[in-house]
Amino acid sequence: MPSWSDLAADKKRRQQKAIPQEWLITPPPETTLNVTGIPETCGLLTPRELAITDEDVNTLLKRLAGGEWSAVEVTIAFYKRAIVAQQLVNCLTEIFVERALARAAELDDALKKTGKVVGPLHGLPISLKDQLCIKGLETTIGYVSLIGEYAEKNAVLVDILEECGAVPFVRTNVPQTLMWGETLNNIFGRTTNPYNRSLTAGGSSGGESALVALKGSPIGVGSDIGGSVRVPSAFCGVYGLKPSYGRVPYSGALNSLEGQDSVLSVFGPITSSISGLKTFMEAVIKAKPWLRDPLAVRKKWDEAEYQLKDRDNGRKLCFAIMWDDGVCVPHLPITRALKRVQEVLTNAGHNVITWYPIEHRRLGSLTKEIWDAGSLEDFALATSASGEPLIATMVPAGNKVTAASFRARESGLTAYQLWQVQKERKDIRALYMEHWNNSVASTGTGRPVDAIICPASPYAAPPHGHSKFNHYSVVWNALDYTASIFPVTTVDPAIDVKQPCESFIDAFDREVYDMYEPEAFQDAPICLQLVGRTLEEEAVIAMTEIVDAALKARPQ
Amino acid sequence: MPSWSDLAADKKRRQQKAIPQEWLITPPPETTLNVTGIPETCGLLTPRELAITDEDVNTLLKRLAGGEWSAVEVTIAFYKRAIVAQQLVNCLTEIFVERALARAAELDDALKKTGKVVGPLHGLPISLKDQLCIKGLETTIGYVSLIGEYAEKNAVLVDILEECGAVPFVRTNVPQTLMWGETLNNIFGRTTNPYNRSLTAGGSSGGESALVALKGSPIGVGSDIGGSVRVPSAFCGVYGLKPSYGRVPYSGALNSLEGQDSVLSVFGPITSSISGLKTFMEAVIKAKPWLRDPLAVRKKWDEAEYQLKDRDNGRKLCFAIMWDDGVCVPHLPITRALKRVQEVLTNAGHNVITWYPIEHRRLGSLTKEIWDAGSLEDFALATSASGEPLIATMVPAGNKVTAASFRARESGLTAYQLWQVQKERKDIRALYMEHWNNSVASTGTGRPVDAIICPASPYAAPPHGHSKFNHYSVVWNALDYTASIFPVTTVDPAIDVKQPCESFIDAFDREVYDMYEPEAFQDAPICLQLVGRTLEEEAVIAMTEIVDAALKARPQ
Repeated sequence: MPSWSDLAADKKRRQQKAIPQEWLITPPPETTLNVTGIPETCGLLTPRELAITDEDVNTLLKRLAGGEWSAVEVTIAFYKRAIVAQQLVNCLTEIFVERALARAAELDDALKKTGKVVGPLHGLPISLKDQLCIKGLETTIGYVSLIGEYAEKNAVLVDILEECGAVPFVRTNVPQTLMWGETLNNIFGRTTNPYNRSLTAGGSSGGESALVALKGSPIGVGSDIGGSVRVPSAFCGVYGLKPSYGRVPYSGALNSLEGQDSVLSVFGPITSSISGLKTFMEAVIKAKPWLRDPLAVRKKWDEAEYQLKDRDNGRKLCFAIMWDDGVCVPHLPITRALKRVQEVLTNAGHNVITWYPIEHRRLGSLTKEIWDAGSLEDFALATSASGEPLIATMVPAGNKVTAASFRARESGLTAYQLWQVQKERKDIRALYMEHWNNSVASTGTGRPVDAIICPASPYAAPPHGHSKFNHYSVVWNALDYTASIFPVTTVDPAIDVKQPCESFIDAFDREVYDMYEPEAFQDAPICLQLVGRTLEEEAVIAMTEIVDAALKARPQ
Repeated sequence: MPSWSDLAADKKRRQQKAIPQEWLITPPPETTLNVTGIPETCGLLTPRELAITDEDVNTLLKRLAGGEWSAVEVTIAFYKRAIVAQQLVNCLTEIFVERALARAAELDDALKKTGKVVGPLHGLPISLKDQLCIKGLETTIGYVSLIGEYAEKNAVLVDILEECGAVPFVRTNVPQTLMWGETLNNIFGRTTNPYNRSLTAGGSSGGESALVALKGSPIGVGSDIGGSVRVPSAFCGVYGLKPSYGRVPYSGALNSLEGQDSVLSVFGPITSSISGLKTFMEAVIKAKPWLRDPLAVRKKWDEAEYQLKDRDNGRKLCFAIMWDDGVCVPHLPITRALKRVQEVLTNAGHNVITWYPIEHRRLGSLTKEIWDAGSLEDFALATSASGEPLIATMVPAGNKVTAASFRARESGLTAYQLWQVQKERKDIRALYMEHWNNSVASTGTGRPVDAIICPASPYAAPPHGHSKFNHYSVVWNALDYTASIFPVTTVDPAIDVKQPCESFIDAFDREVYDMYEPEAFQDAPICLQLVGRTLEEEAVIAMTEIVDAALKARPQ
């Protein structure tokens, strides 16, 4: 029986072999931190391929539907760019060029024969987090013990995407256990941030966000149980959506903490263009996932909610900005981004008020208690099967600065103890709903707040090993609120000069403050989060489009 | 500090005092088993009051809306009949005549002043299970320790019903712990079956079903975690609906096993007329409960699903009859009812095939494991607070035949162990969905089966203490399928002669077989269950109406 490290090395070798030799580039030296320009300069992609991969999702789909661009050439273009990305930031797991191209060719044939697209995503390459099983391929979710397990069928979401005409073409990297805000495992290693490779890409969908940031994929699918779509999207400067439980089907995908029925992981899109969010969600929901996944909510796509019919058609909304969550104060560049959004929304005629958080600290700790209730057993079983070590820190080897924020406790809870934690969380959900409803008194629209705008995390992408347990993302999982990520700006050491601070909420707040060194965060993207209510995906997407348009209408 | 028995006796005395003296009747002797005729013969209700209480829900609402009957007179009529029911089968907990009449008078005033109804349930008295808190009243859910706790606000559902114009007018009895298929507690005692008082009314919503069967309430609200709306509805011969999780708001109501986030309790209507199911559900859902209860699903009332637009407008449906579930064979009268439904549906032009159950036994035991994971602690805490004994059997005192089917195990599970059970249940949900989808090959409609028709329990209402853990109801909670109850016939010892049987599935199956003695079940109603898929309330109601109409069109 081979050792875990032999198994991991063999898997990595097979991955390397799956890359067409002619797609290998001469990589920049490790000292080149910002690699976002390399896809254009490396010479592998033709100008036409660069144009394809730079295109907005909706335009891409139009050109595919019109036959202007074939599915094969679009797939090749994105595949080449994804392989470049892989060589720059190590974002991929499964690579299956032939299979993807064969599928693309089928789609081209179908369009030629029938004159009709196969579905709303006809010909669109889509990347998938390494949880979404594809028939005949391995899915490891970062565990050596899963090497050699070939799926007998697709995850439900993969089936649906294929029926919609999409071309699944790569799978992307994750952290071991899936429960980290960074991306590193014993098989595929670490994914880095394309804007600054000394920074983390975030996690657990860090492979996706790094790939999409380099435009190696127009739409990727990530998962989010505590921020795993949103944190990497924010760290890599792309769009992301965390739907509510059950809006996107999970059945047939692998996961950790299986059987934990309380704070649930959800799949959501990560995209380089804003139009990708609606395109993905509308296509998936119109495929009626509730007929294939017992946990998918039987709720049709609601175009009236997308058009904000009950909210003055979106003409005058009320956004509430949460400047800080009372747990830790965001770094200066994040606050600068919030101010900019406040300004452009006010100028666009919307009302902007302040959001006062309640119970965020407690919601965070309750969620952690729920996950930790049985996580140690879960992780131990998954790692001990192969003998691989359980990763205890994301700090690069030799660097012993900070242990991970997520750590299984020594002993779990009894079921009854777990129920008490879950009950308290439920009670806070009711309190928070009341709090939201009560905002009607301050909005000036006659409605409660339409959306909260807040940091996605208190910092932009930090150096490897420094992404911490993040209340700014976790609370919305605990509340099951729909939340999106949109880019605002990037860290500029010339503007974002560190300011002295003498009073801190507590040691954690100080630790976060101390982390900020403008030079270290050079070029890091700054994104923000827009939060709506449970199962309000349509409205959240529409409001994110409104904020994004307001930002684009007034360039800095 | 008074003893638990003093507290219980005082509460019972206060209840008795709340009954207007002029509404006391001379009760029939205990040997009178079938008391369904007493409301008409006891002389308390006027002919007009009898007409009001005998009326179908929709006609009642029309007459209220038209001012033909005032809310006050309708409330008095039902209140008098409810108090008669209380004297016959002991079905009530809270009695608050003045308050209900004051509310009814307000509604009458509003209609007079504005010419408009307050809402879709204008003037309709509604009874509530003793979990649904009403501001200023006690809610004990059968625990002595909760005597003296007066609610500071209404449960969300109570608020919504009041806004819809309903008149909450009584609350109804439950078993201690809420986790029994019968109705008995140390405060209010036992509720009996109006059709035969030596039989159980079922549970845990047995107070509701007994009251509604005597037409002491047009619509009652019960809750169902394993059959608690359906079993008592079936035992008492009335209509009932168990919606999927979150379709009807639960927030602000009391419950046992709080914090158990897996197999959830739901509220649903219990009604004497079929029209009550749609009326109740449509009114509640149109009030947007998701804006007040974080666990309520944001899903609008879907009139197209109610009209069965995607199913040939209901003209030709395919029903699958499950004759037995492989766990135990139903008693002969139940099978007779299934055959009758098969006949009337076939005659009405629908397809009727056989449903082959999978994994029912396992689903039942998994569900029990999930509840039992922490139930002992939950029950112990709730009873030890007052010192009242935990009820271990529903068998009348002195009769030691059968211990209860639901019993907390000696020690619970760890959280991780609970997750494993929950994971297995989730996997079976996916399997079951596939099984349902695969039925498309046998239906002859081009669609999978539209609904399953099956027993609500393997027997009609049994003698007190003999209602057992019931897979026929529990599996649909485990799968979160929507299920309704509709009446078919009653046990007739002259027809339902016991037949010999020599082979049994196992000892439990034999125990159930041995229970059947035609004379003991005299007059017991026989209802059946119609099962649709998750969050398919609209279609399930429509299909129940179709089956009910087919039955009524061909009287026996």
